[in-house]
Amino acid sequence: MTLTAASTTATSFNLGSARALSCRECGHEIPLAPEFACPQCFGPLEVAYDFPEITRASIEAGPKSIWRYRQLLPVPTDVTRHPNTEPGLTRLIKADRLAAALGVRSLWVKDDTGNPTHSFKDRVVAVALAAARELGFSVLACPSTGNLANAVAAAAARAGWDSVVLIPSSLEQAKILTTAVYGGTLLAVEGNYDDVNRLATELAAEHEDWAFVNVNVRPYYAEGSKTLGYEVAEQLGWRLPGQVVVPVASGSQLTKVDKGFQELGKLGLVEPTPYRVFGAQATGCSPVSKAFADGLDVVQPVRPDTIARSLAIGNPADGPYVLDAVRRTGGAVADVSDEEVVEGIRLLARTEGVFAETAGGVTVATAKKLVETGQLDPDAETVLLITGDGLKTLDAVSGRVGPTATVPASSKAVREALAARHG
Amino acid sequence: MTLTAASTTATSFNLGSARALSCRECGHEIPLAPEFACPQCFGPLEVAYDFPEITRASIEAGPKSIWRYRQLLPVPTDVTRHPNTEPGLTRLIKADRLAAALGVRSLWVKDDTGNPTHSFKDRVVAVALAAARELGFSVLACPSTGNLANAVAAAAARAGWDSVVLIPSSLEQAKILTTAVYGGTLLAVEGNYDDVNRLATELAAEHEDWAFVNVNVRPYYAEGSKTLGYEVAEQLGWRLPGQVVVPVASGSQLTKVDKGFQELGKLGLVEPTPYRVFGAQATGCSPVSKAFADGLDVVQPVRPDTIARSLAIGNPADGPYVLDAVRRTGGAVADVSDEEVVEGIRLLARTEGVFAETAGGVTVATAKKLVETGQLDPDAETVLLITGDGLKTLDAVSGRVGPTATVPASSKAVREALAARHG
Ligand SMILES: Cc1ncc(COP(=O)(O)O)c(C=O)c1O
Ligand SMILES: Cc1ncc(COP(=O)(O)O)c(C=O)c1O
Ligand SMILES: [Zn+2]
Ligand SMILES: [Zn+2]
Repeated sequence: MTLTAASTTATSFNLGSARALSCRECGHEIPLAPEFACPQCFGPLEVAYDFPEITRASIEAGPKSIWRYRQLLPVPTDVTRHPNTEPGLTRLIKADRLAAALGVRSLWVKDDTGNPTHSFKDRVVAVALAAARELGFSVLACPSTGNLANAVAAAAARAGWDSVVLIPSSLEQAKILTTAVYGGTLLAVEGNYDDVNRLATELAAEHEDWAFVNVNVRPYYAEGSKTLGYEVAEQLGWRLPGQVVVPVASGSQLTKVDKGFQELGKLGLVEPTPYRVFGAQATGCSPVSKAFADGLDVVQPVRPDTIARSLAIGNPADGPYVLDAVRRTGGAVADVSDEEVVEGIRLLARTEGVFAETAGGVTVATAKKLVETGQLDPDAETVLLITGDGLKTLDAVSGRVGPTATVPASSKAVREALAARHG
Repeated sequence: MTLTAASTTATSFNLGSARALSCRECGHEIPLAPEFACPQCFGPLEVAYDFPEITRASIEAGPKSIWRYRQLLPVPTDVTRHPNTEPGLTRLIKADRLAAALGVRSLWVKDDTGNPTHSFKDRVVAVALAAARELGFSVLACPSTGNLANAVAAAAARAGWDSVVLIPSSLEQAKILTTAVYGGTLLAVEGNYDDVNRLATELAAEHEDWAFVNVNVRPYYAEGSKTLGYEVAEQLGWRLPGQVVVPVASGSQLTKVDKGFQELGKLGLVEPTPYRVFGAQATGCSPVSKAFADGLDVVQPVRPDTIARSLAIGNPADGPYVLDAVRRTGGAVADVSDEEVVEGIRLLARTEGVFAETAGGVTVATAKKLVETGQLDPDAETVLLITGDGLKTLDAVSGRVGPTATVPASSKAVREALAARHG
């Protein structure tokens, strides 16, 4: 084991600069371990660090993936020696045409569809796998209805681990294929997503060697979302944007992007300039948006009913922390109808050539609404996080878009069709 | 216009180091122009360059996209000032588990599914768009049944250009959606792909401002595939692999990867070590493989019948040049059945967590066969080009993969299902 901050403490795990798990509620600290709930108050545990000196140059000289930030993550210092999916360093594109359509001055789109299985879940799963290996697990598992299932099955395959992915048996055939192809254990569970989730918690307690990424190794897993924040800052030339709009399901991603921005400021990697964090939900599953509007600190669970299935978590674990982050930074949480979600997908595709899944439609449409209500400052530099791929939610645009015209195979017919369209 | 090599010649186009178009058959040169056929012999034109001094450092300091190689492409020196899709710099992963399965010692997978629309076509289209802008076009067009249609519609959307994409009207709904969503002009043509192609050539002649990427700006477009070769070499630490396996449709990509490797050697960016180029086809459309096996220099057209639709070009324009490159380097062209294609997709997914479309299945399965026949040296370092995404050809694995088991929502049921599977 190399001599890192971690090695000077009681723990025997090599998880880089990670020092301990600390309770988000009561602050109690325990040594690094495969735990997720505080032994004192049952609050959620989160990773605490002793960061070494880190320079921009050392990051820039690193791998062209999230592992360039390995010193900021709870992973072994030699993380790149083991096979993993190497997600990250996805495009940050200047979105001038979308900016014009939304009426904002300076807009960027972080296109996380470029990840190995085309969603940001590859980031969190890669970190979970690296930590789980060090923590002694040998099976990668999750309950999921989509993106997470893809990411877990793919990462386990590449690592040569078995995976156990639990899905509701009612899931559409196409979504089953995109996980089953990786050849791990895929269990179709008779029940809805809540049943599947409960089963996962039960199984995590029974199987010592199964790392349910979003259950028993959740504290490590969640840290992977910080890399979205790090990349945005690095790709802007090592500075923080004025505003960022983030889709909210459990709320983890939003809180971690915020945490990532703060860490960069504290470490002197960026000027700690003020920024505002905005959350985006679909109205059909908008418990955090509702709590924000009502000025509450707690989030009332809802029963989801929206086409934005990847965001359909009715009882978001990190809801209260989303409210904290958004209020602390002067942001907001808002929600949009399914109709607006589809319009958001189409607007992004039409203006920037990026085809997002419904979660991306939520982000774009919410940004639009926040500009209209005056909550998003049109003069501040803004970043939209596009976290999932349109190829996975084709139903959302089916029946909405199609050929301009159907024509016989003659240039005359084409001319006529185009004339009819333009004139 | 900045002072480049091009500006010292007669041409008035700023296309970086590109000097002229030269005929691949008779060597005749014409100034840079929107032309694709030799005025002397009707042979295909290709871009010729006067390269300046180029260093590894200047490339490494460039954008994290194909534009880091802009000095090696027929694009304006200020290409990054205009919106484009910024493809490239996709993952090159060490594929140890696939290597073990194939029985080779050192294997790499170039995962081009990470591109903006998830195929290598984003590379060629981005170069075509940049060149077309400089050449005075204002509409981006193509005939296509899939990947190219996605890439053209997306790039045009991002650039704010209109696009004209021609598809056979019989195309499946899902494939229509993934192009239509970008909002350009999408014409469903009554006829098969050959009819669509003929119509494109007719339209290119009639519309001065329409750049059909694979017709009238093909010489520029095709150069985009060189970036696959450049990236492989850079990602290997500035050296050439011993062997590379490339899928073959028109054959353009294979010849350009070869050209890219040669250029790097000539420019002193890599040691010009020997390498062997291998071509991969599906048996149901294997005219180049057949010509190779028969020892011929010409390629007999065939009528395609394979699930590898993105490779289904029965009369490949660059077929003879593929044969040249493969024979010159000591490689081979081989083909595999549709059954093997599906097995190739599954093998890659299971061992490396990469879900490829049928073209990727062709590449993997052909590599396997070439090892078995002794044509691919198991001891030489080998790179497989995975150029398209499994989400676009779900039909290939439909009915082949599925859940391990369907179980009630109880941990006991899970235990029993797993025991039944393992025992
Ligand atoms: C595409 C996509 N975006 C965003 C999210 C939100 O993630 P979180 O649960 O961290 O709020 C999810 C969650 O599944 C997702 O799939
Ligand atoms: C995914 C994919 N790979 C490879 C190719 C082969 O390209 P080429 O025509 O340059 O041989 C194509 C062509 O359409 C393709 O779509
Ligand atoms: Zn506590
Ligand atoms: Zn000629």
